[in-house]
Amino acid sequence: MTNAIEYDRYDRIRPIRWTGAALELLDQRKLPFTVEYLSCASSDEVASAIHALAVRGAPAIGIAAAWGAVLAARAIEAGDGAEAAAKLEPALQRLNTARPTAVNLAWALARMRRALTGAGADWRDALEREARAIETEDLAANRRMGEMGASLIASGSGVLTHCNTGSLATAGFGTALGVIRAGVAQGRIGKVFADETRPWMQGSRLTVWELQQDGIDATLIADAAASHLMKSGQVDWVVVGADRICANGDTANKIGTYQLAISAHHHGKKFMVVAPSSTVDMDTPSGDQIEIEERDPSELLGVSGSRTVADGIQAWNPVFDVTPAELIDAIVTEKGIVEHPNPERMRAVFGAA
Amino acid sequence: MTNAIEYDRYDRIRPIRWTGAALELLDQRKLPFTVEYLSCASSDEVASAIHALAVRGAPAIGIAAAWGAVLAARAIEAGDGAEAAAKLEPALQRLNTARPTAVNLAWALARMRRALTGAGADWRDALEREARAIETEDLAANRRMGEMGASLIASGSGVLTHCNTGSLATAGFGTALGVIRAGVAQGRIGKVFADETRPWMQGSRLTVWELQQDGIDATLIADAAASHLMKSGQVDWVVVGADRICANGDTANKIGTYQLAISAHHHGKKFMVVAPSSTVDMDTPSGDQIEIEERDPSELLGVSGSRTVADGIQAWNPVFDVTPAELIDAIVTEKGIVEHPNPERMRAVFGAA
Repeated sequence: MTNAIEYDRYDRIRPIRWTGAALELLDQRKLPFTVEYLSCASSDEVASAIHALAVRGAPAIGIAAAWGAVLAARAIEAGDGAEAAAKLEPALQRLNTARPTAVNLAWALARMRRALTGAGADWRDALEREARAIETEDLAANRRMGEMGASLIASGSGVLTHCNTGSLATAGFGTALGVIRAGVAQGRIGKVFADETRPWMQGSRLTVWELQQDGIDATLIADAAASHLMKSGQVDWVVVGADRICANGDTANKIGTYQLAISAHHHGKKFMVVAPSSTVDMDTPSGDQIEIEERDPSELLGVSGSRTVADGIQAWNPVFDVTPAELIDAIVTEKGIVEHPNPERMRAVFGAA
Repeated sequence: MTNAIEYDRYDRIRPIRWTGAALELLDQRKLPFTVEYLSCASSDEVASAIHALAVRGAPAIGIAAAWGAVLAARAIEAGDGAEAAAKLEPALQRLNTARPTAVNLAWALARMRRALTGAGADWRDALEREARAIETEDLAANRRMGEMGASLIASGSGVLTHCNTGSLATAGFGTALGVIRAGVAQGRIGKVFADETRPWMQGSRLTVWELQQDGIDATLIADAAASHLMKSGQVDWVVVGADRICANGDTANKIGTYQLAISAHHHGKKFMVVAPSSTVDMDTPSGDQIEIEERDPSELLGVSGSRTVADGIQAWNPVFDVTPAELIDAIVTEKGIVEHPNPERMRAVFGAA
């Protein structure tokens, strides 16, 4: 196993900085043209930043909320953890509802509440330790997933990724982009492609910028060019993140992921899903039970504030799709890899529901 | 067969208008927000308009060039067709090089030259008759293809189309969009979807606008949402145009077409190519012999003048891709339909190379 230290040169972006006095969030609404940290001095400012998408990506949102709880603690006085928990609850609720669908947000705040249980007069330290642990564990999990995922990739491979699953979406290093970072650091990956990822253009705005900051050359393609790219022989693996992984391995992720999986299968290319085990939902048997969120059609009527479509046009804007397990070669989590996922193999790594 | 007259209410856009004194071109650079005809009073103005993409679509370019030749004739004096042909040649050459890759442009100008052969003092009439014939034949071919293609579509079907293959790209009615117009007029098509078609956004800017003008409801989707759409059961046919059709049925068309064909095949949906027989190239055995044009990567670095990507990012911008014949259920031309194309079936309709 390569020493993780060697990856530092490929991992220089941190979307979340705790200064001891404030939480600084890399404002992702302004990227890639302005690199500006938004300073939040209160939990309400953190909640607003989460709500307004200044910080995005499920792990990053959870970490920001944990530090938001630390800031909330500055505004109260309490003799022990139990008293603090009661006084903090309104602020935690406001953080929790900033993005109600992000599962990591609730998960991180639940950890913060548990950290207060049984804490005495040092409850403030307990809170700050827990926030730091959530952040540190996320980075460590990403580095571990990066190592494991990269180990599946043969030397000289080309990879294609979708959306943004990088440092910007996590404490650092990223999930699918972490595998790509590790694969580049190990010399396994020769060429990296990223697709634009309409409608939000996370590929164009965030992924290629993030890789550029770390000195990793990436080539941008139109979403519709992915199959032509695979046919050209320049790609061996498609590596993507996940929003939810079901008990049978079916994976919900950003719209367009399913199309890449179909095309990879058609061309005999491999398809890898990389996500922390908190993304695995063993209570949901298959993708058939996942309701796909549809967002405002207006997101398809223009790009970056520039309108492209006539008035009165209808659009259909599903934000996620489901990739069935049979199109997935490997699901990589920090708990282990599930190759050719099915319910039995998933249970072997993640236990029963 | 439904009377063609019934289609008029679904076919109200004309990108090219000959006034008798000038050629008016619907300026497609300004659509969908400004509907403005550019008036060309000379063949050089027509050449400039073609070059600057005010008119686009191979058939429409050919028709515009033919009228450009009529305008060129106004600037010369000649006693018969032979003398006129010699004097017109410089102007025809300028028209021909306005878009050197558009095959219909050279084809239309060759017809205009032939019309002068053997013409006497009435050579101006011969030229104008030929230009009108080119335009009229294109519209008739489109209506015929529309009828034939629609006959393959079962009642209540949903269709998805790509790029713009409509009235805007032809004399009127369109190729793939002509099939959709005919299918809607006949009540066969219940639901029409169009994808955005990055990077030029012809779907967003042109196709949904064009259909809206004719009262046909179309729903815009992101290119990456096509597979999710097919899985949802809302689409029975994918209907697209073609830039070149090889002797074995392999079809070059706008980037993204291949991806739709793979996905249609995966979902058991049907895939139709609609193009005039002038698009069929029996001299090219298969798609392997087609070189795919790659355009400036800058087209992926922004949308409609709004920049989305950081400086220094590389992009790969292939403009076309090749859909292999085995993924195509039907090729529809005005000469007939080739179902499940292969070299034998192609020869039966289009003859030997």
